[in-house]
Amino acid sequence: MLREPQQERSRTTRRRLIEAAMDCIGERGWHGVTVAVIAERAGVSRGAAQHHFPTRESLVAAAVELLGEAQLDELRTRAAGLPSGPSRIERVVGMVLNLYTGPMFRAALQLWSVASTDEQLRGVIVPLEARVGREAHRVTVELLGADESRPGVRELIQATLDLARGLGLANLLTDDARRRDQIVCEWARTLEARLEGTAEV
Amino acid sequence: MLREPQQERSRTTRRRLIEAAMDCIGERGWHGVTVAVIAERAGVSRGAAQHHFPTRESLVAAAVELLGEAQLDELRTRAAGLPSGPSRIERVVGMVLNLYTGPMFRAALQLWSVASTDEQLRGVIVPLEARVGREAHRVTVELLGADESRPGVRELIQATLDLARGLGLANLLTDDARRRDQIVCEWARTLEARLEGTAEV
Repeated sequence: MLREPQQERSRTTRRRLIEAAMDCIGERGWHGVTVAVIAERAGVSRGAAQHHFPTRESLVAAAVELLGEAQLDELRTRAAGLPSGPSRIERVVGMVLNLYTGPMFRAALQLWSVASTDEQLRGVIVPLEARVGREAHRVTVELLGADESRPGVRELIQATLDLARGLGLANLLTDDARRRDQIVCEWARTLEARLEGTAEV
Repeated sequence: MLREPQQERSRTTRRRLIEAAMDCIGERGWHGVTVAVIAERAGVSRGAAQHHFPTRESLVAAAVELLGEAQLDELRTRAAGLPSGPSRIERVVGMVLNLYTGPMFRAALQLWSVASTDEQLRGVIVPLEARVGREAHRVTVELLGADESRPGVRELIQATLDLARGLGLANLLTDDARRRDQIVCEWARTLEARLEGTAEV
């Protein structure tokens, strides 16, 4: 019983460090960020930060994992509130195609970009991204009620997530929301036609 | 007549600087690169480099433009050699969805990523990307023989190019060619169905 509050404090500290890390990387880029900078932003002592995360890489790994999961949890929660019926697919497609338009994607992109020339960071990022990517795929299949045993459905769901990342990229330097809305509408119509008969809505 | 060879030399120097810039940025990232580093890689004196491109930004702007155009020229040339008939759409879709899987995209991504936190670079990149993006759209419409006056066609072509950039991202840290081939096949089938009656092949 005595250890509970301490464990909780520890979790809070980790969480604050992770959020500060993604904020700092998103704003200044990977090269502008050290564990000390992140600790300061999180309001945590440098020693405590280094106790939890000895390297920038370990902090980033935890961040990619935790924030990826948080994003998918949010997607699930929001989708659970959607009515069934014909408008459901468009709403779900809208959520998925908006997944990568926030500051989290901006930070992740900094990491991918650096990891493409930094082997150590790549070794951390690749397996994590694979795991988060598989989970995003699973959630999307579930929310669309898609039947992946039908030929082509698996690839269309993958394409939907790749499209989402491409739209994230298009939104990086300018606000692309209007154009994206039209693509959501058209892609929902296309998916609906291709998934026809497999949706459990 | 006397000035021709000099103009040509000048063009060659610019071209070498541009190619060296993209190589250097792709390998070391934006932060690891200066005009001096690029000049050395190009085998051009630092003075000559600074004569052509006073800043790193101006060099990069020229690079994005020239290499974007070169890539689309290549796409046009390769597509011109394609037979007409039902396999044409899949071949064109394959080319478009492979557009962003090379070292050029890796370098561009470094720039986008930096530009997202660097206002000066963003001011250079945004209008250029818009121009190169419009041109990529135009070429894709032309090669697919798509009729954009039909509702939804414009958005599907845009989605195809956003998907291509998303696939470029997925290919950044690992070789994603096998998965991408399957998406090409499925996306081509989807486009074929939606463009039906508009293809002039």
